[in-house]
Amino acid sequence: MREVAVIGVGNTPFGELWEKSIRDLYVEAALKALDDAGVDRVDALYVGAMSSGMFVDQEHLGALMADYIGNYHIPAVRVESACASGGLAFRQGYMEVASGMSDIVLVGGVEKMTDIEDATFALASAADQDNESYFGATFPALYAMIARAHMHKYGTTRDQLAMVSVKNHKNGALNPDAQFRLPITIETVKKSMIVADPLNILDCSPVTDGGACAILCPLDMASKFKGKPVKIIGSGAATDSIALHSREDITALKAVRLSAERAYQMAGKKPSDIDVAEVHDCFTIAEIVITEELGFAERGKGGPLVESGKTALDGEIPVNTSGGLKAKGHPVGATGIAQIAEIVRQLRGEAGKRQVNNPKVGLAQNMGGSGASSITHILEVV
Amino acid sequence: MREVAVIGVGNTPFGELWEKSIRDLYVEAALKALDDAGVDRVDALYVGAMSSGMFVDQEHLGALMADYIGNYHIPAVRVESACASGGLAFRQGYMEVASGMSDIVLVGGVEKMTDIEDATFALASAADQDNESYFGATFPALYAMIARAHMHKYGTTRDQLAMVSVKNHKNGALNPDAQFRLPITIETVKKSMIVADPLNILDCSPVTDGGACAILCPLDMASKFKGKPVKIIGSGAATDSIALHSREDITALKAVRLSAERAYQMAGKKPSDIDVAEVHDCFTIAEIVITEELGFAERGKGGPLVESGKTALDGEIPVNTSGGLKAKGHPVGATGIAQIAEIVRQLRGEAGKRQVNNPKVGLAQNMGGSGASSITHILEVV
Repeated sequence: MREVAVIGVGNTPFGELWEKSIRDLYVEAALKALDDAGVDRVDALYVGAMSSGMFVDQEHLGALMADYIGNYHIPAVRVESACASGGLAFRQGYMEVASGMSDIVLVGGVEKMTDIEDATFALASAADQDNESYFGATFPALYAMIARAHMHKYGTTRDQLAMVSVKNHKNGALNPDAQFRLPITIETVKKSMIVADPLNILDCSPVTDGGACAILCPLDMASKFKGKPVKIIGSGAATDSIALHSREDITALKAVRLSAERAYQMAGKKPSDIDVAEVHDCFTIAEIVITEELGFAERGKGGPLVESGKTALDGEIPVNTSGGLKAKGHPVGATGIAQIAEIVRQLRGEAGKRQVNNPKVGLAQNMGGSGASSITHILEVV
Repeated sequence: MREVAVIGVGNTPFGELWEKSIRDLYVEAALKALDDAGVDRVDALYVGAMSSGMFVDQEHLGALMADYIGNYHIPAVRVESACASGGLAFRQGYMEVASGMSDIVLVGGVEKMTDIEDATFALASAADQDNESYFGATFPALYAMIARAHMHKYGTTRDQLAMVSVKNHKNGALNPDAQFRLPITIETVKKSMIVADPLNILDCSPVTDGGACAILCPLDMASKFKGKPVKIIGSGAATDSIALHSREDITALKAVRLSAERAYQMAGKKPSDIDVAEVHDCFTIAEIVITEELGFAERGKGGPLVESGKTALDGEIPVNTSGGLKAKGHPVGATGIAQIAEIVRQLRGEAGKRQVNNPKVGLAQNMGGSGASSITHILEVV
């Protein structure tokens, strides 16, 4: 397999973008990424989107986006793995370049979520329809059960959950593309509307419109283009039972651990080698469990980890410097690529006010549903 | 890139399968393919499905199917390219094996279409929502325009359209898994209900439930398993404008031609080398245009081609020996893999009453929407 580099990234601002359609969002992000990379051709295109059918009655996104970036008649692939669709698009594009099938590949993700009344219903299609969603279990409810179990088993506190949101809002305030750019306090989180106890609305990522793209090419071709390359050194994907009730332990996210182990092994890295990470904080409890599964904390110690400040912007292992899904916003299909874009900017030293100190290795972890799928990538400066 | 073989295929019967859910359909086809190949492990899984969200409120199909074939925690990828989702799943799985990322890959497609009242509305999400579907243009209407233009420009006759359906029903009658197993006549087609003039209901493929799967592995590993291998020698994918009105000539299907040219080039084959073909006859006019784009007839001569009998079961280049989408049925996500399954059976000499005489090279062409995406594969006996 060939070594592969990311040579360009781009994204739309994230938010309630009433004036932009799904194709506008993808094309805007694609053109920014192409411009960042300095390439004027694309051999193949990927688009990750969770449920453009349920959100905007539009499938066939590969052909649609190839058409609207300029109709190059290129192969175009839409992939879906619920909220991990973007990370999966990145992995599939990586494989296409690594295999030798194509040289310059545009990978992107997009979601247009604000055009329907009930985004929570559409999102529930990522759970087990026959055994969860049909009976009314929404994602806030599923993650609330994970949170309660984690609090019971490990002593994780309500304040520790809130600290994830406070940290990510603080980072998001430094990100001009974030949906929410306001710092909040633990008290604000705890006083916000209850969604599914113990999760209040400020524990939940928002409904968001947005797109994000990246350009991949073989590493040995990267010097031909203006975009500063970052090397992909690890890619891991894993799945778990789609229904929460089928798992041995709902306080664990086994697919996250496996996807990370596979990525670490491929990269020849360990958790302590990671200088900056974007992880899938769809709910505050998710970041706590994920940091455990990635090996940043012992099992059950994700709460104390965030409380210690180690995952803050100036900590040992800054997590979600972009603001994360919580503050940056969570256009589900776009999230995985937006995470990559943040890691690339951090490794290039282009992250502005949220730049961490000279990172060499970054990790992006993207998750689907209540953890039934997870994709982890590790990137390194060249 | 490594050479790749298909070592097993399997499918459900196609039809209105009220007693089976989308997961049942995929799992049944997967277990049949695994059994056919004689493998007991899978390294990664693909599932092509067009719109499981709009059809059955279920996305996240990769994780779901990995779970329901036995929860191996394997990487699992759902791909979508409208009615070409199955062909795309096959191509992506091919790339995963060719790249060296995985050895044994399960590729499949599935669609559960009969659980909603208006399948035509869900299918319209494969067209341009903003410029076609929103204004009421359904697929029968779009293909009717193609048919009228082709008749006007090339003199294609109403009877020639009907002959496609008659041929494919004749073949479908020999296929125990086909949805319709009854021979029909030109008069039956012409007297059937008008859907969008000049297309009557017997010019249209039906709404169908079904699943189909195949097992891929490196060619040099194939002899380890009991499944008789067939080699993948060409894979081509291409796109075109999603909206019909954006094309220079609506009597042509440029993505089909490009996908075929790319597959022929990779395989080192030409149209006259093909011994048997499955093509995307979603409407009778589609088979006529596609046989032109594949090079089986001159441009505009697809009507005379079917009339000549050359594409019949005992003709020079038998097309849609399975019964095609028209008679076998068209569970959209499954169709591309079902085409591959038919070609594999023909090349193995296992096609029963519809076996053609000693074919060495077969072609499968799968299309999305009104031709905005096309995937062509060429397979050869080992």
